Amino acid sequence: MELWYTEEQTDNVRLSIKVKEHLYTGKSDFQDVDVFESEEFGKFLTLDGLMMVTEKDEFIYHDMITHVAMATNPNVKNVLVIGGGDGGTVRELTRYPFIEKIDMVEIDKLVVDVSIEYLPITSSKLSDPRVNLYFEDGIEFVKNAKHKYDLILVDSTDPIGPGEGLFTNEFYTNCYNILSEDGILVNQSESPYYDQFSHEMKRAHSKIKNIFPISKVYQFHMPTYPSGHWLFGFASKKLDPIKDADFEKWTSLGIKTKYYNPQIHVGSFSLPTYVQEMLDNE
Amino acid sequence: MELWYTEEQTDNVRLSIKVKEHLYTGKSDFQDVDVFESEEFGKFLTLDGLMMVTEKDEFIYHDMITHVAMATNPNVKNVLVIGGGDGGTVRELTRYPFIEKIDMVEIDKLVVDVSIEYLPITSSKLSDPRVNLYFEDGIEFVKNAKHKYDLILVDSTDPIGPGEGLFTNEFYTNCYNILSEDGILVNQSESPYYDQFSHEMKRAHSKIKNIFPISKVYQFHMPTYPSGHWLFGFASKKLDPIKDADFEKWTSLGIKTKYYNPQIHVGSFSLPTYVQEMLDNE
Amino acid sequence: MELWYTEEQTDNVRLSIKVKEHLYTGKSDFQDVDVFESEEFGKFLTLDGLMMVTEKDEFIYHDMITHVAMATNPNVKNVLVIGGGDGGTVRELTRYPFIEKIDMVEIDKLVVDVSIEYLPITSSKLSDPRVNLYFEDGIEFVKNAKHKYDLILVDSTDPIGPGEGLFTNEFYTNCYNILSEDGILVNQSESPYYDQFSHEMKRAHSKIKNIFPISKVYQFHMPTYPSGHWLFGFASKKLDPIKDADFEKWTSLGIKTKYYNPQIHVGSFSLPTYVQEMLDNE
Amino acid sequence: MELWYTEEQTDNVRLSIKVKEHLYTGKSDFQDVDVFESEEFGKFLTLDGLMMVTEKDEFIYHDMITHVAMATNPNVKNVLVIGGGDGGTVRELTRYPFIEKIDMVEIDKLVVDVSIEYLPITSSKLSDPRVNLYFEDGIEFVKNAKHKYDLILVDSTDPIGPGEGLFTNEFYTNCYNILSEDGILVNQSESPYYDQFSHEMKRAHSKIKNIFPISKVYQFHMPTYPSGHWLFGFASKKLDPIKDADFEKWTSLGIKTKYYNPQIHVGSFSLPTYVQEMLDNE
Repeated sequence: MELWYTEEQTDNVRLSIKVKEHLYTGKSDFQDVDVFESEEFGKFLTLDGLMMVTEKDEFIYHDMITHVAMATNPNVKNVLVIGGGDGGTVRELTRYPFIEKIDMVEIDKLVVDVSIEYLPITSSKLSDPRVNLYFEDGIEFVKNAKHKYDLILVDSTDPIGPGEGLFTNEFYTNCYNILSEDGILVNQSESPYYDQFSHEMKRAHSKIKNIFPISKVYQFHMPTYPSGHWLFGFASKKLDPIKDADFEKWTSLGIKTKYYNPQIHVGSFSLPTYVQEMLDNE
Repeated sequence: MELWYTEEQTDNVRLSIKVKEHLYTGKSDFQDVDVFESEEFGKFLTLDGLMMVTEKDEFIYHDMITHVAMATNPNVKNVLVIGGGDGGTVRELTRYPFIEKIDMVEIDKLVVDVSIEYLPITSSKLSDPRVNLYFEDGIEFVKNAKHKYDLILVDSTDPIGPGEGLFTNEFYTNCYNILSEDGILVNQSESPYYDQFSHEMKRAHSKIKNIFPISKVYQFHMPTYPSGHWLFGFASKKLDPIKDADFEKWTSLGIKTKYYNPQIHVGSFSLPTYVQEMLDNE
Repeated sequence: MELWYTEEQTDNVRLSIKVKEHLYTGKSDFQDVDVFESEEFGKFLTLDGLMMVTEKDEFIYHDMITHVAMATNPNVKNVLVIGGGDGGTVRELTRYPFIEKIDMVEIDKLVVDVSIEYLPITSSKLSDPRVNLYFEDGIEFVKNAKHKYDLILVDSTDPIGPGEGLFTNEFYTNCYNILSEDGILVNQSESPYYDQFSHEMKRAHSKIKNIFPISKVYQFHMPTYPSGHWLFGFASKKLDPIKDADFEKWTSLGIKTKYYNPQIHVGSFSLPTYVQEMLDNE
Repeated sequence: MELWYTEEQTDNVRLSIKVKEHLYTGKSDFQDVDVFESEEFGKFLTLDGLMMVTEKDEFIYHDMITHVAMATNPNVKNVLVIGGGDGGTVRELTRYPFIEKIDMVEIDKLVVDVSIEYLPITSSKLSDPRVNLYFEDGIEFVKNAKHKYDLILVDSTDPIGPGEGLFTNEFYTNCYNILSEDGILVNQSESPYYDQFSHEMKRAHSKIKNIFPISKVYQFHMPTYPSGHWLFGFASKKLDPIKDADFEKWTSLGIKTKYYNPQIHVGSFSLPTYVQEMLDNE
């Protein structure tokens, strides 16, 4: 049966994935939510028709959003996850026994419900006792938060629709304010390759570097995202992701990872010249 | 006008690119050759319907096939390029004034002719006086070559059709034999992500590491190739691509590059755990 | 959400329909069964990935398979339907109060079950007391049938897979044998436009005309089938579909139809010259 | 090489045709003009990306636009063709030896030039001495024409872009005024199946029937047009296309046709009930 999920990555580029079954379709107050079964990628989740997570390569994204910061500061106790409704980021965080609290703020409860039902691979640890789920707007949450966090992971969609406010000066400033002295902010930073994505990448980085003393960008290979070339931003009050990384301690934790390792941690901050220039020129 | 070039990257994944014009179609003894004009990627060349080179991102591939070896040994005088009919690899080589001879062996003259007509961006330096074009089989060429080379760049298609013999023990052994003492072999090594490509990646690496004392693999982001995650193999008789790299000398040459830089040179050898394990387990 | 059902109508032609939801997927002993929801066609059913029936245009097919024969002989009492698992053919038959018995022989119970659940528009009359459902092979059924029928409607898939035996001499001969003196056989006869379909059209007609004294072909517009140009065969022992049609009686029945009417009944037997020649030359 | 021409027939339906070569692309003052070579349909021409004519099935359209009127009045001497830049309509007209003059008014010279170069199958008779080519606006032409015509064939694109003015009251009235007493107007009348086309079909028919004493619609199977179900309008001052048709005379001319014949002439005016109701209710 020829059923193809097609993402219009740009007006001129389409990625199509053969689908075995359309497992779920629903509509929340915020977006369309769909789950598909495919031969190539296993199950995958889309929001407003855009690829979010596949069983085949979610490990790449979740390794890279989590372990770079955790190896930089393997003393993190309190973590805030903004977005991340599929649960994969939380799953990686729960592997650190010394983390005491994980607040996850996902605006769209439907994404969590659907992930729990269809994507146990990512959502399995949402029931960890350290995890507190807040189904509310992350923008408001960081404005009103009373406690400090050692780490904030912004696991957001593109800056269109519900994700838009997560790419503003106000949001980044509020993140700064609720971070502890050693605090780190990691945020989904789009891609350098296609214009519409690099435009957002530049805007986000330009804002963050005015707020945080340390602001860098690191890259990874994410085959199901447009161009396969994706970025996270790393910002902190004082910790440098390379100089301050404690790989000895991280390695001693014995956490098995399929993408992340200390070498790629370092290597991922080495950006192509054209990407570095885009970031510098903002 | 809705005209779409579609590459079936796997049986279950298709990348489609909107085409403004189909500039050329032809058939050589070896393969179908086509050139398209597109909004997103400018002109692009396909062989047997598979994406080879686009104006938008050819710089990535050609930077990475050339400059990693050249920074490792910035004393290279004689270079052999196998394949590379679009001319982009030769173009990068001609930027080194101390290179004395570039033998390019491309089995399919039509690819060169079409590139000269439609892709001046890559083919512009094929007329450099140091360049000797041989329209013959690279497999035979390395078997019979009488001179030594300091660098061999295997800029081949996938190991199907004309590219197949370039992934054999015999070919790699002949390359070894015609390399000088400082000699380096760089070869197109497919991709780790989709099974059919990682299968070839593993086979190639497993053969090369039995022949060359030093054998490594490095990665780069190539958005128009399947998964966007692509690899080159680096093999040599004695030079290590990181320890022996002479970045000071390379930088002093003042070669402007859009992707390559010494940081990404180093970083590109840091592979994701799952890729490293695939290579180690062969 | 960009989900597209694609039918490869030929190796070189694809019809793609935007899908809102993949409502059902299943696999019987005979074939894959899928149901989709779409904006353009409402719900539609596919077998082995081929379009069978849509809510938007099923009325065309079911009008034309049923009413042409019924207007030719508005005295039919006993009807045999071979295939027709969606129930649309039976639905049209039940509109004739004087029909006493409708035996429907569908090899694949799953098609009926799925149609009852998802396509009430076609399946609503399968519970009519005059209808007897037999989930068995139509080929065997006509071989062993003891009673005579006044009308046999072969509402089959293409002659590939379960439908294959319904395009044989033996099957048509058995149909002949179990038809009453006034008996009529109507069979799905493919399409004249694309070679693979016209090949089957010619083979079927050539067999039937050797068995039945009267054998004609009539056409209709079926937009969701390949080329949109589709045919039924009309064969009978003595009734001519035009000369013997009793439109006065048919009209007096007051059956409202959206496609069929006496004028199109007559007009549909006027075939394009190239179609007529294909049929004559077999 | 996987190159696909895709026509978005509606927002939710796409027909894709595998292309061997994109033979020509150009842009006139009026529209984009493209020619493709395909396995399934031979060469085909598109305007603004919409399918106009293929080598495989142009005979259907050109038979039906021409011969229905010519059999109704096989005394036609002066013909006006509006549009029809590919030449196929003129080609059919030139087969009638008693036609003395064919004025063809095509707004876009590029369509004619391209057809002459790439589509000899349709354009071959544009050089017939009876043919006068006018590269001007058909709307203006009929407003200012001084001579009477026995037949006007409106071989236009959809009522979007250059074709729009050919679907107005003013245009139809001017056609009426320049037709002789026996005059016939045949016009491209879109399709009943998809809403956007049936909307135009109804509007066109509603205007024409207020102007012409006789106004009918006839249908044919055009597989490469949306839904494959297409219509022409037949309007005249006094001749009825069925009662007045002179099939004896037409047959005596010995014109070999692949689609048209006297039977299908008559049959094509028998419309499905839903189409007839759409036309009656306007």
